[in-house]
Amino acid sequence: MRFMTAAILACLAGPSAAWAQAAPPSPREVPAKTIPVPDTVSPALQAIIAQPLRTNWDKPPTTPDGWKQLSDGFATLVAPQIGPMSERLRVSVAPTTIDGVRAYTITPTDIPAANRDRIAIHVHGGCYVLNPREAALPEAMLLAGFGRMTVIAVDYRMPPEAFFPAALDDGMTVYKAVLRTTAPGRIAVFGSSAGGALTLEMMLRAKAEGLPMPGAIAPGTPMSDATQRGDSFQTNAMVDNVLVSPTGFCDAATKFYAAGHDLADPLLSPINGDVRGFPPTILTTGTRDLLLSNTVRMHRKLRQAGVEAALQVFEGQSHAQFYRDDRVPEVKEAFEEIASFFNRHLDR
Amino acid sequence: MRFMTAAILACLAGPSAAWAQAAPPSPREVPAKTIPVPDTVSPALQAIIAQPLRTNWDKPPTTPDGWKQLSDGFATLVAPQIGPMSERLRVSVAPTTIDGVRAYTITPTDIPAANRDRIAIHVHGGCYVLNPREAALPEAMLLAGFGRMTVIAVDYRMPPEAFFPAALDDGMTVYKAVLRTTAPGRIAVFGSSAGGALTLEMMLRAKAEGLPMPGAIAPGTPMSDATQRGDSFQTNAMVDNVLVSPTGFCDAATKFYAAGHDLADPLLSPINGDVRGFPPTILTTGTRDLLLSNTVRMHRKLRQAGVEAALQVFEGQSHAQFYRDDRVPEVKEAFEEIASFFNRHLDR
Repeated sequence: MRFMTAAILACLAGPSAAWAQAAPPSPREVPAKTIPVPDTVSPALQAIIAQPLRTNWDKPPTTPDGWKQLSDGFATLVAPQIGPMSERLRVSVAPTTIDGVRAYTITPTDIPAANRDRIAIHVHGGCYVLNPREAALPEAMLLAGFGRMTVIAVDYRMPPEAFFPAALDDGMTVYKAVLRTTAPGRIAVFGSSAGGALTLEMMLRAKAEGLPMPGAIAPGTPMSDATQRGDSFQTNAMVDNVLVSPTGFCDAATKFYAAGHDLADPLLSPINGDVRGFPPTILTTGTRDLLLSNTVRMHRKLRQAGVEAALQVFEGQSHAQFYRDDRVPEVKEAFEEIASFFNRHLDR
Repeated sequence: MRFMTAAILACLAGPSAAWAQAAPPSPREVPAKTIPVPDTVSPALQAIIAQPLRTNWDKPPTTPDGWKQLSDGFATLVAPQIGPMSERLRVSVAPTTIDGVRAYTITPTDIPAANRDRIAIHVHGGCYVLNPREAALPEAMLLAGFGRMTVIAVDYRMPPEAFFPAALDDGMTVYKAVLRTTAPGRIAVFGSSAGGALTLEMMLRAKAEGLPMPGAIAPGTPMSDATQRGDSFQTNAMVDNVLVSPTGFCDAATKFYAAGHDLADPLLSPINGDVRGFPPTILTTGTRDLLLSNTVRMHRKLRQAGVEAALQVFEGQSHAQFYRDDRVPEVKEAFEEIASFFNRHLDR
């Protein structure tokens, strides 16, 4: 009885020996609940939050052809949106090939003097399997548009065309090509989800190869831990309407890319890497994001290593919704913050 | 059918017109689940996360005497911990009175040259009703200990002794007293929960009175919105083992303090205030915190107003567990980060 009282009081009373005396670790039983759409975000974002859980989140393709069809379906859906989006963001998009790697150059119609000699390299998300071709473009276009900066979007090889570490190899090929023409301090690297992981993996690879670090990076909601470790995989399961569950389609896609390689390898789970010497980093996530923990754990790890690292967390957003649509006010806000961070840290 | 396909694909495909076409806003139905204690935090923190929900979280006192007994109980529990904690953190604690306001001065046994002429003012948490006397001290001692900086902890008046805005008045009295001896750029203000709100409320009051801003502030998991707005009030309900629910004891305590005053007043809900001109601010919260949204919404609001504002979010932590116990590694990490932020932004 006396122990119970102390444990209860300790919940509010601040420091105590409660943790040393506590009962054996026990999981939290959370009852079913109904979570309304929050009124603390823009109406446009409310409509995104209100969308139902992704259908078939637990029924991923089981064959290479199945993945290819799903992936091509996405790309086909996105393709017609690129033109109107280019106009709204006042950017032009041109396909290119850089040392054999497929890419796009995204050029703002106007570029402020400070950004004339800067380049941002973008590696897209999609669980290492989705978002080929035009589907690789939207996040890259958001930075080009809201940041008024030239962006090279890497349309890296994906399964079933190629497997780990093909995506990373293609990102590195483009980074090395840009290094030939641009001082490292003028280069940024960014991307979200698998693209956030790839951004971090590129830094680990660059360190290993003795290449200079870029001036700044922006890994958004990075898949920094592909082994399903992290508390929000549980707390935000069935809350996040994009990824939905740690054992959903994204986990299946990542394993398809890894092709049997150890998922704990820092080049698939950069949370396990040595991040000392990383450039200034800004990370972005949302309160409902299944990868909230992946993001904040990476932020703490960077800070522990003495890296200048900023974190922005958006109210009510599930995975990667901070780049869902350029017409959502919170999307503009997120990319203006990233652009501002790049502007502060990149050389002119 | 065509609409459904588009809506489903849009979940992954990036920007689309999906939000404009979406079904009417509908709440998320989240099934019951069991959330294990995460293995991604220190063993000491795991034991804190494993504690059961606070008993009687939904049975707050209903009389002034009931609140006083609860509050006194906490203080009695904490009092004997102050001595050992002082030794561990190498600080001394002395009660004082500043222009009639009860306070404590916390002095590190050694103070680095940069901190000699700096002072941090601390306003404690406890839903405006709890943590009188020694119970006001622990968070203040953490900054003094891990930051090696002199701290004045304000033991402000609380119900049933005095009601809104007595706590704020007492904080301001101490701030004005410190301003008489210390340049504003050398002063920091900090506190968590109700203390985080009070920190922000003090800035609003200082602006209104034409007083200078301090050099930096650190509102931890601030009760920035006392009207229960914010998505994590729902998503983290029954997940956070400290506050547990938006309609729990803390809401009752806040209403006891407000004594009928409008809870949306910026001096009770600083999210509704004009934060332009605020000093550099660092905010701290956890992924399971019921006030995660209160914290990240405040961070975004500060950034929107052009204020330099940093955010740190700790894995797996419920409300205010970043100052639960000085022997937890993540607690040391949180306060070293806050101290580092103060060191960068305060004048010498």
